[in-house]
Amino acid sequence: MDENKFEEMIEEVIEDVYEDVYDDMEAVEERLDELSETVEELLTRKQYAALRDLLMPLEAADIAAMFNDLDERVPVLFRLLPKELAAEVFVELESDQQELLIHGFSNAELKEVLDELYLDDTVDIVEEMPANVVRRILTQSDPEIRKSINEILKYPEDSTGSIMTTEFVDLKENMTVEDALKRIRRTGPDKETINISFVMDDQRHLIGVLGIRTLLLAEDDDIIGDIMERNFIAVQTLDDQETTAQALSKYDFLALPVVDTENRLVGIVTIDDAIDVLEEETTEDFEKMAAMLPSDKPYLKTSVWETWKARTPWLLMLMLSATFTGIILTHFESALAACGILTAFIPMLSGTGGNSGTQASTAIIRALSLDEVRFSDLLQVIWKEFRVSICCGICLAVANFVKMMVVDCWLMNNPAVTPLVALVVCATLVGTVVCAKLVGCSLPILAEKIGFDPAVMASPFITTIVDALSLLIYFRFATLLLGI
Amino acid sequence: MDENKFEEMIEEVIEDVYEDVYDDMEAVEERLDELSETVEELLTRKQYAALRDLLMPLEAADIAAMFNDLDERVPVLFRLLPKELAAEVFVELESDQQELLIHGFSNAELKEVLDELYLDDTVDIVEEMPANVVRRILTQSDPEIRKSINEILKYPEDSTGSIMTTEFVDLKENMTVEDALKRIRRTGPDKETINISFVMDDQRHLIGVLGIRTLLLAEDDDIIGDIMERNFIAVQTLDDQETTAQALSKYDFLALPVVDTENRLVGIVTIDDAIDVLEEETTEDFEKMAAMLPSDKPYLKTSVWETWKARTPWLLMLMLSATFTGIILTHFESALAACGILTAFIPMLSGTGGNSGTQASTAIIRALSLDEVRFSDLLQVIWKEFRVSICCGICLAVANFVKMMVVDCWLMNNPAVTPLVALVVCATLVGTVVCAKLVGCSLPILAEKIGFDPAVMASPFITTIVDALSLLIYFRFATLLLGI
Repeated sequence: MDENKFEEMIEEVIEDVYEDVYDDMEAVEERLDELSETVEELLTRKQYAALRDLLMPLEAADIAAMFNDLDERVPVLFRLLPKELAAEVFVELESDQQELLIHGFSNAELKEVLDELYLDDTVDIVEEMPANVVRRILTQSDPEIRKSINEILKYPEDSTGSIMTTEFVDLKENMTVEDALKRIRRTGPDKETINISFVMDDQRHLIGVLGIRTLLLAEDDDIIGDIMERNFIAVQTLDDQETTAQALSKYDFLALPVVDTENRLVGIVTIDDAIDVLEEETTEDFEKMAAMLPSDKPYLKTSVWETWKARTPWLLMLMLSATFTGIILTHFESALAACGILTAFIPMLSGTGGNSGTQASTAIIRALSLDEVRFSDLLQVIWKEFRVSICCGICLAVANFVKMMVVDCWLMNNPAVTPLVALVVCATLVGTVVCAKLVGCSLPILAEKIGFDPAVMASPFITTIVDALSLLIYFRFATLLLGI
Repeated sequence: MDENKFEEMIEEVIEDVYEDVYDDMEAVEERLDELSETVEELLTRKQYAALRDLLMPLEAADIAAMFNDLDERVPVLFRLLPKELAAEVFVELESDQQELLIHGFSNAELKEVLDELYLDDTVDIVEEMPANVVRRILTQSDPEIRKSINEILKYPEDSTGSIMTTEFVDLKENMTVEDALKRIRRTGPDKETINISFVMDDQRHLIGVLGIRTLLLAEDDDIIGDIMERNFIAVQTLDDQETTAQALSKYDFLALPVVDTENRLVGIVTIDDAIDVLEEETTEDFEKMAAMLPSDKPYLKTSVWETWKARTPWLLMLMLSATFTGIILTHFESALAACGILTAFIPMLSGTGGNSGTQASTAIIRALSLDEVRFSDLLQVIWKEFRVSICCGICLAVANFVKMMVVDCWLMNNPAVTPLVALVVCATLVGTVVCAKLVGCSLPILAEKIGFDPAVMASPFITTIVDALSLLIYFRFATLLLGI
């Protein structure tokens, strides 16, 4: 492409970049990919002014996503961004990219970025960095900020303290609304949110909260103590971060105050951080339910070695526990030898058992984590699953009987498949489904009651138990009905 | 308990109810249960004033949870609440409770509740109610509101239009900050959020957005057009609600504007509704991955019949597809007869294969839904899973070899378990794990590419495929190494 045409094209792209990228959410990814190519092209041609114009209107999260694929060219691009946007992009980058950038920063540059960051984001970054980078970050931070970072770093990893920020708007009870608004105007730019203000007494005890809406709708000379909400929900620094995130979601709050054991206000947790926590916890649930140890890195960023470490322990344990099914099968070897066709239905039976159990356990685990089901509902759950499993079991048994008679007996003309064999298989099917559903629904509830994570009790574990049970039922019916 | 003592006790409970219930998030559930009993006791004694004092300081979500267990006594309690709180509680109730209450309301009472509701909540309620209740709600609503409800009801079920609200703060470009604040003060009480205002031209085209922070930090005579953000993200009424919810979460917004095809602003979606959507979609993913059809009711509210309907189709399909494994087993009947011990390891092999496949598919499905992995990463994913599976497979094979030699051969003294048999089982193990991981990681990505939901490709489906593959590998190695 000749130079002039390219210039023209770029001008056009820059003009439309905003609408082009964002007017249809469903296609954003695709357009960002196209844009990414333009960015690389411009980088090669060293057209930095055009690059800046192209990136500026984009959202920080999208610029960061673009940067994550550009590796060693990121520092050049990063320096093109105005400092506020640069800081926003920095927060959204993967931690290996952040580290790379920090290594390339001069001390002055690092300080500039750190000054723009909100405290909780700084803490997140510090938590991911190796010791030497952490030292540099702490050295370049304001003494005030450094103290706060160190405070927050002291809280245990999954505690509410570790995700809170100490940058909130604090008011006094005896202020007027006018005073309060003045204070918000003065200190607001450095606060994580101004949507909610927190009212403290002289000993920093939290005594009330106040939404910006109430404040704006009040008269200028109203007293804060009269209009603030004295019934508020607060969480403690050592509360589990998941509990706090769920409280924010359950009560539809934008921020929750965090107090220490003496009820002194030490920070706030905002809704955006709560969403991240909920997302992480959901991922962990998925991982546990699929018999993996939870990891906190995105899939493609996890090394083969880390993935292996997360997956092998459970596989190993489940493999060894399958020894029991092996023993059962060895025990009934003579029965199988006498009626070889029985072997052909073992995979179908254990598969159906496993799937039935997984359905029940998944439904219950999800209901537990959404707080729809609790220990006191155990009997009600079992009674419900019993009825469902009877219906499912009979339905499957009938279908299977028809299938065995039509396909195996008639179409494939297998003389070993007699109606009596079909009856054994179908009776086992009903028994297996009932067992699987009952085990599947009760184990997670019992696990939660004794303080285990119900997600760990999920499909693979239950499948192993159900496998053994279904074989026992199978051979019981076989000896009973076939007389072997 | 004598009357006086009870009165005293109640007074104490009421005094402490707030701190008692909420000071420790982890124990909230338990304390609410205790409180629930007190509420029932007071109801029986008809102490309505005390009941009111007891309920008033609680959060609407918790009062609603309490009401969900009280059935026919709810209307009495509901009438005790001040009308604003009553409306908040009403929104949080299960739909069967809402219906019950509406049936008991006089027209005046219904109108009073409806007047307090935000529009999007009214729409949610209308969507769940039977036709005769909907008619009553529409009759009792203001004509303006009725029109809006009808508008929103027209959007398809999972569209952004169906979750938006039309109650937002709208400003004009030429207003001053003072005008804008006045407008917010005047119209704010009826708006879903005042945190973000939306600037429209005379044809109601969205031309800018403005956060309350910017507004408060600006000078009184600044012009809105100068301080508003002209680069904003908007979604369209027909966009998938999940896409919109993910955009809110990704960009950390509190609200997103919704425009029609002519870019006219028709509503907004707020973060609290987005969280609900994300939670629903996650539940759906869990359900699909456990081979259930998605349901939109809480577990205990779903009837046995509905649960049965959601679970049977996939169970049936998976059971019938297990026919293939049956055919493979029948085909190798003579091999099994010649070396009966081989049967004993089939459940272990298919279990391990299933678990390995589930690990890979779950990791990929989650990564796809978090947008960490895309179709273009397919080769990278396959290469990674290949290396992980080789490591996992070898590790499991070694452990299994040792176990077979020590437990089966030495401890249980089973003469059929020879080193050669152990070798066949271990070689199959490696082959199965590699196959399972490769199938598990690639099927969900391919499914998404051709427009299927990757979650449906999850564990049960992959397990069935892997079952058949592992048997084929097993008999291949058996004929090769054991010469049968």
